[in-house]
Amino acid sequence: MASSLFTKTSLPSKSFNKSLNAHSISSFKLPVSLSFKPRTTLPKRFSLRAGLIEPDGGRLVDLRVAEPERDLKKREAALLPRVKLTTIDVQWVHVLSEGWASPLTGFMRESEFLQTLHFNSLRLDDGSFVNMSVPIVLAIDDSQKERIGESNRVALVDSDDNPLAILTDIEIYKHPKEERIARTWGTTAPGLPYVEETITNAGNWLIGGDLEVIEPIKYHDGLDRFRLSPAELREEFERRNADAVFAFQLRNPVHNGHALLMTDTRRRLLEMGFKNPILLLHPLGGYTKADDVPLSWRMKQHEKVLEDGVLDPETTVVSIFPSPMHYAGPTEVQWHAKSRINAGANFYIVGRDPAGMGHPVEKRDLYDADHGKKVLSMAPGLERLNILPFKVAAYDRTQGKMAFFDPSRAQDFLFISGTKMRTLAKNKENPPDGFMCPGGWKVLVEYYDSLTPSDNGRIAEAVPA
Amino acid sequence: MASSLFTKTSLPSKSFNKSLNAHSISSFKLPVSLSFKPRTTLPKRFSLRAGLIEPDGGRLVDLRVAEPERDLKKREAALLPRVKLTTIDVQWVHVLSEGWASPLTGFMRESEFLQTLHFNSLRLDDGSFVNMSVPIVLAIDDSQKERIGESNRVALVDSDDNPLAILTDIEIYKHPKEERIARTWGTTAPGLPYVEETITNAGNWLIGGDLEVIEPIKYHDGLDRFRLSPAELREEFERRNADAVFAFQLRNPVHNGHALLMTDTRRRLLEMGFKNPILLLHPLGGYTKADDVPLSWRMKQHEKVLEDGVLDPETTVVSIFPSPMHYAGPTEVQWHAKSRINAGANFYIVGRDPAGMGHPVEKRDLYDADHGKKVLSMAPGLERLNILPFKVAAYDRTQGKMAFFDPSRAQDFLFISGTKMRTLAKNKENPPDGFMCPGGWKVLVEYYDSLTPSDNGRIAEAVPA
Repeated sequence: MASSLFTKTSLPSKSFNKSLNAHSISSFKLPVSLSFKPRTTLPKRFSLRAGLIEPDGGRLVDLRVAEPERDLKKREAALLPRVKLTTIDVQWVHVLSEGWASPLTGFMRESEFLQTLHFNSLRLDDGSFVNMSVPIVLAIDDSQKERIGESNRVALVDSDDNPLAILTDIEIYKHPKEERIARTWGTTAPGLPYVEETITNAGNWLIGGDLEVIEPIKYHDGLDRFRLSPAELREEFERRNADAVFAFQLRNPVHNGHALLMTDTRRRLLEMGFKNPILLLHPLGGYTKADDVPLSWRMKQHEKVLEDGVLDPETTVVSIFPSPMHYAGPTEVQWHAKSRINAGANFYIVGRDPAGMGHPVEKRDLYDADHGKKVLSMAPGLERLNILPFKVAAYDRTQGKMAFFDPSRAQDFLFISGTKMRTLAKNKENPPDGFMCPGGWKVLVEYYDSLTPSDNGRIAEAVPA
Repeated sequence: MASSLFTKTSLPSKSFNKSLNAHSISSFKLPVSLSFKPRTTLPKRFSLRAGLIEPDGGRLVDLRVAEPERDLKKREAALLPRVKLTTIDVQWVHVLSEGWASPLTGFMRESEFLQTLHFNSLRLDDGSFVNMSVPIVLAIDDSQKERIGESNRVALVDSDDNPLAILTDIEIYKHPKEERIARTWGTTAPGLPYVEETITNAGNWLIGGDLEVIEPIKYHDGLDRFRLSPAELREEFERRNADAVFAFQLRNPVHNGHALLMTDTRRRLLEMGFKNPILLLHPLGGYTKADDVPLSWRMKQHEKVLEDGVLDPETTVVSIFPSPMHYAGPTEVQWHAKSRINAGANFYIVGRDPAGMGHPVEKRDLYDADHGKKVLSMAPGLERLNILPFKVAAYDRTQGKMAFFDPSRAQDFLFISGTKMRTLAKNKENPPDGFMCPGGWKVLVEYYDSLTPSDNGRIAEAVPA
């Protein structure tokens, strides 16, 4: 089933959008490539085109070793001290390799780590700043550090000891876990999902350096072809003659409130004079916490939303964002936005409490629901990005559909919480008509049905925005 | 005794430095004011002079109401809702009123607060950044918020209900205590002195706005005349024809290791071609934790250090920095540096573990000892400041004096910890000859002698750098 997903949307379609403008046409003289296979170097023509927003640092980073050199690099890697990567480490290698974190060229050295923690930004040689809010670091323990010894390079290997990458010109420095957690999450309360998964039991050292990625990262889960790199997304946007790209980050099923927001955004962009705004519907594909709906189910649900016509496939690109999820609220939303600049988005939709979650210990949200959009609008290095704040959508009982909340008739609106949705889906009940397209809802019901009863205790908040 | 302090140094002296350079002379045509009384507006000539570094934002903020308007403002204040200030709040009013935090014009509104927490910097209207690393905020509780109601202004009153200032165009927003602590200190461990003193029991709201300070803040402790404002310090540096000003922030007694560092810095600046580098020896005068040596005793000790000729009064200005102490390490050192730019310093000496302390719970330093100088050198908004990293000084047994540590003969050096110093001073024993001038040491012995035995439990780490 997965292989039939989104043939109308994210895969190269032959249908060109009708509303081409002169500017897009003039920038389109070179032959259009229909190939999405990873590139080891950036096609030069990107820098010649005026259409899309420039990547951070002016050049999209690509850390994948060119095909002809891979065997050589593999042999080199075999001779180096090895660092075994966790699943999440591999996701970061993926993120780095394709330039989502441009201009980063590998796992952070201490200077980049400290700038990220203290300033959420990196200063470039020309004195300008790029945004960088979450540490992209690789932890090693004392024994690994000892094995590396005086070597200037290490091989990064997967759980089967296959070399995935070489880290060169390495720098090993202390891993100040408590400080990293406090400055990234604004709390050190126990129970932060990413912290428990990747930091608490990680080594006391961090190792930074420049990455050479020997094999493009693949997951072999039937969804790899939806994992478009920033370069591939830029190609797709140019192929569609986009004159504006608006990104929607999500880690949850799409309900009609989300859809309303996305279609309304497109309407606003058209009103602003853009001829062909393209939506990047960009579900996060890396690590998510146990009670989030898994990627494969979310992709099925997104497919139904497009099939049911809730979003227009002609002006929507669905692709998977390979980053793991921090659940770090205002800090993380900057990463979510910055990485989409690198993929060509110049508009970013931000909602209530982006990348937020409940406080792990106290009975309240971890972050102020408005801080995310405020921080995003003030963040250094994101000046070029247009921030589009979310209007709150809720179920309007008078219209029988999701609509923008109107405080003057608050009593007409129903806010359907994630907990409420989960309970309905688990009990195979239906939400109010118009809350979610029936096909999408059916996927959710199937997902909760597929869970064994023993998992139930872990499902808490499945479908908040 | 206090009134005789430093007559040779910080008070206007009639001795002009001999090594004037042409540039300084040419900038000195206007009459030199010998008056140190607070000004309500900045003398215009500051902006005409090229000699000293520009304040942040281009103009030194002065929030003190002009003398003729004070009575009017007092009458206005009497009609407004009142917010009672703590001792530390008053210190911040002092700091803000004189422009140490330029271009801040009052207690932070939420936008400034969030930028401080996340970016350690504020974006100005022209797109440039100034550094701002510690929140300068005023907390109020629910009942105070209710009393303020819809008023757009409040009167800030001292413990005797005297109106000190008016806060106008106010904004009240949530006080996210845990997040503020985590992002400022990089820990939420219980026992952070400033946190326990000012945040833990503070109100759940913050109130920001523009300050109009009705009366210049005075402490009536015999030391007020050493509390020179940034404008007064700039005047003094110009009067001395300084062509470089290097600041040394301290909250501890000066030992000969500090002195070596300061004199060596002057030597290096002369080598760099400066003709008349002036040292700003700038002890912090606001809140310090219970086991630090109190300001009055430190000032006595500093006086002795100058009397004994360890530092040259001719090229040294001793003044009190009115800020309270956060003990927030790499975050706070930026504040210590930024505020000195506003006072005219273009060189800043940074040592090992600046503004650091022991972890309140774990047996280790709270901060990596090198992070302070690294973070300072990378901080947005401090690009114009020259950072001078501290060389480590220790007691060299072969020379019988403090000297720069030479790792090739580590065995010759003795590191004298704060605990060791305190124990010696308490027992009225002497440190090794050459560690501290005898007059300065005597002050320390007297201080510890003055403590009642019941206080002893609170004295832990008196004299670290």
